[in-house]
Amino acid sequence: MFKIRLLVTALTLAGSISVATAWDALPTTAPAPADNPTTEEKVELGKMLYHDPRLSSTGTVSCASCHNTMLGGEDNRPNSMGVNGQTGGRSAPTVWNSAFNAVQFWDGRAASLEAQAAGPVTNPIEMGMKDWDAVVATLKTIKGYNQAFAKAFGDNSITKDNATKAIAAYERTLITPNSPYDQFVSGDKAALTEQQIRGMNKIAELGCTSCHSGAAFNGAGAFQQFPVHDNEYFAAQYHFKKDKGLAEVTKKETDEHFWKVPTLRNIALTAPYFHNGSVGTLDEAVKIMAKVQLDKELSKEEIADIVAFLDGLTGQFPKQTMPVLPATSGKTVN
Amino acid sequence: MFKIRLLVTALTLAGSISVATAWDALPTTAPAPADNPTTEEKVELGKMLYHDPRLSSTGTVSCASCHNTMLGGEDNRPNSMGVNGQTGGRSAPTVWNSAFNAVQFWDGRAASLEAQAAGPVTNPIEMGMKDWDAVVATLKTIKGYNQAFAKAFGDNSITKDNATKAIAAYERTLITPNSPYDQFVSGDKAALTEQQIRGMNKIAELGCTSCHSGAAFNGAGAFQQFPVHDNEYFAAQYHFKKDKGLAEVTKKETDEHFWKVPTLRNIALTAPYFHNGSVGTLDEAVKIMAKVQLDKELSKEEIADIVAFLDGLTGQFPKQTMPVLPATSGKTVN
Repeated sequence: MFKIRLLVTALTLAGSISVATAWDALPTTAPAPADNPTTEEKVELGKMLYHDPRLSSTGTVSCASCHNTMLGGEDNRPNSMGVNGQTGGRSAPTVWNSAFNAVQFWDGRAASLEAQAAGPVTNPIEMGMKDWDAVVATLKTIKGYNQAFAKAFGDNSITKDNATKAIAAYERTLITPNSPYDQFVSGDKAALTEQQIRGMNKIAELGCTSCHSGAAFNGAGAFQQFPVHDNEYFAAQYHFKKDKGLAEVTKKETDEHFWKVPTLRNIALTAPYFHNGSVGTLDEAVKIMAKVQLDKELSKEEIADIVAFLDGLTGQFPKQTMPVLPATSGKTVN
Repeated sequence: MFKIRLLVTALTLAGSISVATAWDALPTTAPAPADNPTTEEKVELGKMLYHDPRLSSTGTVSCASCHNTMLGGEDNRPNSMGVNGQTGGRSAPTVWNSAFNAVQFWDGRAASLEAQAAGPVTNPIEMGMKDWDAVVATLKTIKGYNQAFAKAFGDNSITKDNATKAIAAYERTLITPNSPYDQFVSGDKAALTEQQIRGMNKIAELGCTSCHSGAAFNGAGAFQQFPVHDNEYFAAQYHFKKDKGLAEVTKKETDEHFWKVPTLRNIALTAPYFHNGSVGTLDEAVKIMAKVQLDKELSKEEIADIVAFLDGLTGQFPKQTMPVLPATSGKTVN
């Protein structure tokens, strides 16, 4: 068994860590924090803000540009493209079921969806707004936002805090229940094929679920070193160690190459893989994980079984209505 | 009166021009060409394709990026931003009610929505795909698209022709009926304010509706010189003559600075204005149009009346469901 680190840092970032048992079905609702109970008005406003490119300096990039709610919750790119065609070094994590992450971002630096939502908007290579004062000023020029914030939070309530609360409230509704796996663990033993069941047993036997535990297969806030075992071939191909992960936040040498354990939910939809999006196929990702985390060589059959099981983690995507964004009336924004 | 040109070129491009009388309510359905009757399956497929950024070389730009169906049908930018942050010289026209344009693009170079849909996908500064063969190859790798094309067009039917037909079929559903103006002309005399009625009468008196005629206020395929009257002040400010318009297509000197008459429908939502998006507010746009087209100076009150009337051309936007895009299964596209 390789070591799992529920880092003190992670605990500090996360506030509290709830440990779920493995092999649970995905809940159909996500708990909301005490200071941001989910309401219909917040969700509606959050959906608008989430899809509004006017929250970027160029008016071209919304949260949905990189975390696409019409797709698997991200952009199928190695790294995302922000304002003016700029790219960063990390691959966008999926927004679907992100409510079940104890911490957010690859390095877990945000303790909540609310804290996460504040980040990209003012990141110069993502949405590029100068600061949140500029975002708030933009929103205040749009009559429909004044009304939508009033409904959700009361009169004259356009603030950074409320905007990120609304976005987080919307994100808590982005859940994909009822995958073949969920149907299986809820009692429908025909929901997974024999091959998928072999794959499911294999990942438990190998120890994958030591980290990818809980209903979201995300370790409920666990951090893990990646790669654990150096492998020259993969290192040369995929440059996994170029980015120091958690250590970029904590500046501690002992945190180098530690990462939040990502969910396996809908992983068949979210290629390419890993923090730097360097691996194009799920087959290759499974092979790499076995080798660099567990020092094991998998056969082609074992890989195929595991990939078949992972396909069974694709959930049902809720039908959403498209938001009608409040208009920029008779003038240019930004 | 200034001259209107229903150019031979335009007629050639458009096939046939239907001339609508002024002061009509906007139809709630748009006619489809004989070779592309609208079906539910095509509309559903077209909606997916329209919103799919994987139709661009970077996987970041969809039709909706510049012609945003959650907003006024464009991007509220002077000019749009395509792949890798590139920008062109023209402002994205609205997709809403584009079914009522006899020709498409600012220079009218596309005779149909089908022909228009083919253009941006392979334009190097817009969606940047190498060619339509590459688009078709990408779509064929996505299982759900094979199924959706089969439903709409029969088995093994992923082609450029069918893709653009589906997009056009979807666009024909993007209609915003029942604006205050439509309610007014349908008999509800209280639907427009007194100021709006003054504005409506003023644009008829001035002659604006000579060009902006018909239910969509778009001249039903007419081309018009812009600017007609040179004005040094506006020329220095807004560089209207930098782009030669129709002449860029026909290479004829007599077509220089001729443009398709754009719709006035939802114009309050589509700032900034003119072919180069150089004018930020509707007030300024109205002032400029009177001066450089009609050689008339409007008073502040007249401008305010006209802008109030134009606000009354904002229609009702249909509630749409968000498409669930077929997944890129386990591998990267592009």
